[in-house]
Amino acid sequence: MRGGLPARLARVAQMLARLPGVGEKTAQRYALFFATTADEATARELGTELVTLREHVRPCERCNHIAEVGEDGRARCAICLDTRRDGTLLCIVARVQDLLAIERSGAMRGRYFVLGRLLSPLEGVGAEDLPLEALRSRLQDPGEPIREVLVATPPSVDGEATALLLAREMGAMGIQVSRIASGVPHGGDLEFADQVTLGRAIEGRKSFG
Amino acid sequence: MRGGLPARLARVAQMLARLPGVGEKTAQRYALFFATTADEATARELGTELVTLREHVRPCERCNHIAEVGEDGRARCAICLDTRRDGTLLCIVARVQDLLAIERSGAMRGRYFVLGRLLSPLEGVGAEDLPLEALRSRLQDPGEPIREVLVATPPSVDGEATALLLAREMGAMGIQVSRIASGVPHGGDLEFADQVTLGRAIEGRKSFG
Repeated sequence: MRGGLPARLARVAQMLARLPGVGEKTAQRYALFFATTADEATARELGTELVTLREHVRPCERCNHIAEVGEDGRARCAICLDTRRDGTLLCIVARVQDLLAIERSGAMRGRYFVLGRLLSPLEGVGAEDLPLEALRSRLQDPGEPIREVLVATPPSVDGEATALLLAREMGAMGIQVSRIASGVPHGGDLEFADQVTLGRAIEGRKSFG
Repeated sequence: MRGGLPARLARVAQMLARLPGVGEKTAQRYALFFATTADEATARELGTELVTLREHVRPCERCNHIAEVGEDGRARCAICLDTRRDGTLLCIVARVQDLLAIERSGAMRGRYFVLGRLLSPLEGVGAEDLPLEALRSRLQDPGEPIREVLVATPPSVDGEATALLLAREMGAMGIQVSRIASGVPHGGDLEFADQVTLGRAIEGRKSFG
């Protein structure tokens, strides 16, 4: 008989291996951290939070951003509830992480809509898999008419395909649609920029003043 | 006001950021996984396990390997309890992960002792920080006299320093001490092996037959 992890710890490792980008060995390292290295309280506190996490945190019913469930049992995120936001501008992103990155930039004063996924012919994700119905009803919300939509899906093949689909959908609804700029990143080196990025930086050039 | 994560989810991310090698962004990704991508049950199940983990899993009182706590409240690992093991051979390792790796090789039929750390002058870890007292009483256990100790600390500066210290300690106790071989790994390329590894591979050469 070989001496592996105790069954209970192996189970913890197995569940941790479901985390994105985490393989068997990393999961084992995490499990051992909770069982030995960490403060006695760390595993217990994290466990307590995780047990009730899904009761308290859900996608916002309006925009799919992650939201704390209110006393009325409804999930509405801090951005949708913030009355100081520009309600006429809607930024569409692929993932909550992208929303958080844009928020850190401080450059977006409007509201958001999180798609959750992108069109991906290779992975078999078609238009019917995107939350287009929810997006349409968000855009037609009479309480908050949207004037401009900024499509901030990533400048990848899937992100561009999704942006094109959205632009077509919303153009038909008479809404102004814009797309985030793509080019050489701030602090980036032209020498090491790829051809597509350089091409876009030149196509999208702006005149001074 | 910027729209970040809900407080509850930010707390989960903060705790996950304590995991070894996990930074703020990865922790956020893990937290979002539990809150959105994962099955409804995953976070709850993992949470339930983590809450009571430290009551059920502790270092083995005999060897420091990770062990499930028995009905008698004592923690003894599967290897120490296994009567088919060679009780006269003791393998000393730095970490539980190293023990697991050796177990996977199937080449060690004896028992183990996990140090938990290595001598490290740079990090201020001295001999007094190693569990030498526990190791001595393990070696002097009259129920299971040890004939040979195999020191399997890693072939790094800290690992070698620790091995030398252990060899001196146990040599004085009249126990035969051996060290794992160091050399070019199986499938490794001589061209890309570093000088120290090549030097050791030549020093530790074996004659055929």
